[in-house]
Amino acid sequence: MAPLRSWLDVDHKSHFSLHNIPFGIISTATDAEPHPAVAIGTHALDLQIFTRENGFASLSVIQPHQSVFLQSTLNAFAGLGRPMHSVVREYLQSVLLANGPFPDILERNEALRQTSLIPLQHCKMHLPMQIGDYTDFYAGLHHAYNVGTLFRGPQNALQPNYKHLPVGYHGRASSVVVSGTPIRRPNGQILPNPTAESKEPILSPSRKLDIELELGCFVCKPSALGEPVRISDAPEHLFGVVLMNDWSARDVQAWEYVPLGPFNSKNFGTSISPWIVLFDALEPYASRGLQNDATVLPYLDEHDRKSHYTINLSVTLTTSSGSTSTITSTSATNLLFSFPQMLAHHTVGGCPFNVGDLMGSGTISGVSKAEKGCLLEQTENGKVDIELEGDDKRKFLADGDTVTIVGVCGGEEGALVGFGECSGRIEPAVELDYS
Amino acid sequence: MAPLRSWLDVDHKSHFSLHNIPFGIISTATDAEPHPAVAIGTHALDLQIFTRENGFASLSVIQPHQSVFLQSTLNAFAGLGRPMHSVVREYLQSVLLANGPFPDILERNEALRQTSLIPLQHCKMHLPMQIGDYTDFYAGLHHAYNVGTLFRGPQNALQPNYKHLPVGYHGRASSVVVSGTPIRRPNGQILPNPTAESKEPILSPSRKLDIELELGCFVCKPSALGEPVRISDAPEHLFGVVLMNDWSARDVQAWEYVPLGPFNSKNFGTSISPWIVLFDALEPYASRGLQNDATVLPYLDEHDRKSHYTINLSVTLTTSSGSTSTITSTSATNLLFSFPQMLAHHTVGGCPFNVGDLMGSGTISGVSKAEKGCLLEQTENGKVDIELEGDDKRKFLADGDTVTIVGVCGGEEGALVGFGECSGRIEPAVELDYS
Repeated sequence: MAPLRSWLDVDHKSHFSLHNIPFGIISTATDAEPHPAVAIGTHALDLQIFTRENGFASLSVIQPHQSVFLQSTLNAFAGLGRPMHSVVREYLQSVLLANGPFPDILERNEALRQTSLIPLQHCKMHLPMQIGDYTDFYAGLHHAYNVGTLFRGPQNALQPNYKHLPVGYHGRASSVVVSGTPIRRPNGQILPNPTAESKEPILSPSRKLDIELELGCFVCKPSALGEPVRISDAPEHLFGVVLMNDWSARDVQAWEYVPLGPFNSKNFGTSISPWIVLFDALEPYASRGLQNDATVLPYLDEHDRKSHYTINLSVTLTTSSGSTSTITSTSATNLLFSFPQMLAHHTVGGCPFNVGDLMGSGTISGVSKAEKGCLLEQTENGKVDIELEGDDKRKFLADGDTVTIVGVCGGEEGALVGFGECSGRIEPAVELDYS
Repeated sequence: MAPLRSWLDVDHKSHFSLHNIPFGIISTATDAEPHPAVAIGTHALDLQIFTRENGFASLSVIQPHQSVFLQSTLNAFAGLGRPMHSVVREYLQSVLLANGPFPDILERNEALRQTSLIPLQHCKMHLPMQIGDYTDFYAGLHHAYNVGTLFRGPQNALQPNYKHLPVGYHGRASSVVVSGTPIRRPNGQILPNPTAESKEPILSPSRKLDIELELGCFVCKPSALGEPVRISDAPEHLFGVVLMNDWSARDVQAWEYVPLGPFNSKNFGTSISPWIVLFDALEPYASRGLQNDATVLPYLDEHDRKSHYTINLSVTLTTSSGSTSTITSTSATNLLFSFPQMLAHHTVGGCPFNVGDLMGSGTISGVSKAEKGCLLEQTENGKVDIELEGDDKRKFLADGDTVTIVGVCGGEEGALVGFGECSGRIEPAVELDYS
């Protein structure tokens, strides 16, 4: 199939081809209140303006619900459900399609084109959803194996539960921020000499600040307390996907995490990319994840359904001197459990979900060193350096480093379905004075 | 000081004496929309009606903010800050005081008395706050010691970090429910024979359903990403206290919690009492908590300030046959860390807070068996029975059991500051069919 072509000039390498149509929340010089948009090429189509100027005139089914495009988050739109997302996305594709069925809506409507198509560089991006609860899983098998090997050796790398359930923990929703938000190095309790007999902590800026390459998935359908979501129903509960960097302070984590799990080592910031790529757009890239050599219980059995996606992921590190190095390249298929499995597990005991709840995949790593999704793995917990461009090197992140995750599906020019980027720059720790 | 006396008939054993004035969210036969109230004796004073009928006429400072009493949660009122909470509470005390300064507001205003004073049994209680994030700590020293002893023996009962920081984990905000909400026994992955070599889980209703006797504390002042709250500033961030039952599935927990902490074992329901007791009301009962024999770092040092409260706590279990047994009686002073310490620790790395965020204390246990705040401790993880009234016994909760936590400060009749109760009845697990 030839790529769909828009009457709007869309670069053939754009992540935001006509095949994508991701949804986000923008503000602009003319409207500083956050409001919905879709991305197409180098532009945002401002859905608030588009709605007010009757852009949905040829889509009667959305008309009773148009106020969803006048909100400051995508929760209301998400809450309309997967069938409506499909209809709206396909309609917007039709409106933007060269020689499409609705040329009068936008292509030949010079006034609306002028006001509603806004260059992306003039858009400020906001968190796309109001996030009620955020859960982070640990479904990256190679990551779990590598980290387990570092701390317990290869024989005991994976815990007995690992292949039977998607291990996860509750994260901090309030610290999820949109790409571009600076990340301050956290202060926290660390052991200055972890191998010493004496366990006397100090308060210090983290010395082991790390990244975690992840995907995030937003929920679009609520489920009530006491109501499990069956795995066959799970896809209709899932809205779309973003890139995620679950920044981690490894020294804080090592000291705090027994017995109740990560806490301050994670809750100082989790970055997500601003454009939510809908599952409809990802569907052509559906694939299987990693083979699970354990037999999962029936409530997690997907019957070999393709519920992972071939998303090519990379991570770059740009130092304060400006040199940029690719530190990871891998694929989102390196997951043992899928988002539908995560949701089915999360709700099997009756945990309720709200529209806008977020699930993280866990760190995604491949097998080889160049595919490892965090520095803990790459540097063997700070034992070896990674080499950067410009004769630089790192064990963990330095102040001023900018880390950028990029993710894209497909290699066909003109038909890419990409996420744009998820980026954050490390700022120095707050100077604390408790004297 | 003699107890304050109201012109309204308030039983001398009421938890809601004139010394208390706790805030909650009610709905009534005449107004089914949730809205704010305070409790006094056996009545709720409906603050929406009180506000609309000019009840705050003699408190000019609240007048620009009166819309906070027309909301469906207390978040807006909480967000006004501690000084305003004090002023409003004291004004309402004055309005309700016998021979008080404002008899025309309510006492002599027959029409407003009729409409705004509603018997508590005619009020449906709702969650008092919209909870953004919920964090559960583990500050009950005796509980942590007892549980650690069960699993690792007395020598290694407490982890090395335990006395240096308030250990905590992120909980699930969506599963926090108001007292009276039925709790469905969760299904989950458990090991049918945990001591066997083979680690093959099954999906089953939890066989080790437990309670956790806790306090919850709501936050009333936001703090931004990257902004630590100093411990000396922490009290002004804290709104008030509720009773909490952090229902726990011990068999699910044992299998899932390594390495990232409790997850589905906790997120099927956490009950809180409906009336938030403000810190001003608790202040006469301020005391010290447990002595910490470790020297905490300066950011956690309260300089011996009294930041715990002498709250007498008890737990009863009522079986489906109707017999009620007291299974725990203890004091809220059995905590090693205070809420200000928890907030200072939670934010030291920059974790942001929103108004309405909730912190749980962790299970509160005393030293003796009768003071243990969960069944895991009392029955030594199901090894021994606890005896109930009516020749009944339990290792863990049975379907149909109702567990009720009660908490009250003070012994002086007519001046009690109590929480009412936090109650929940266990319903049978959902029958799952994955065939």
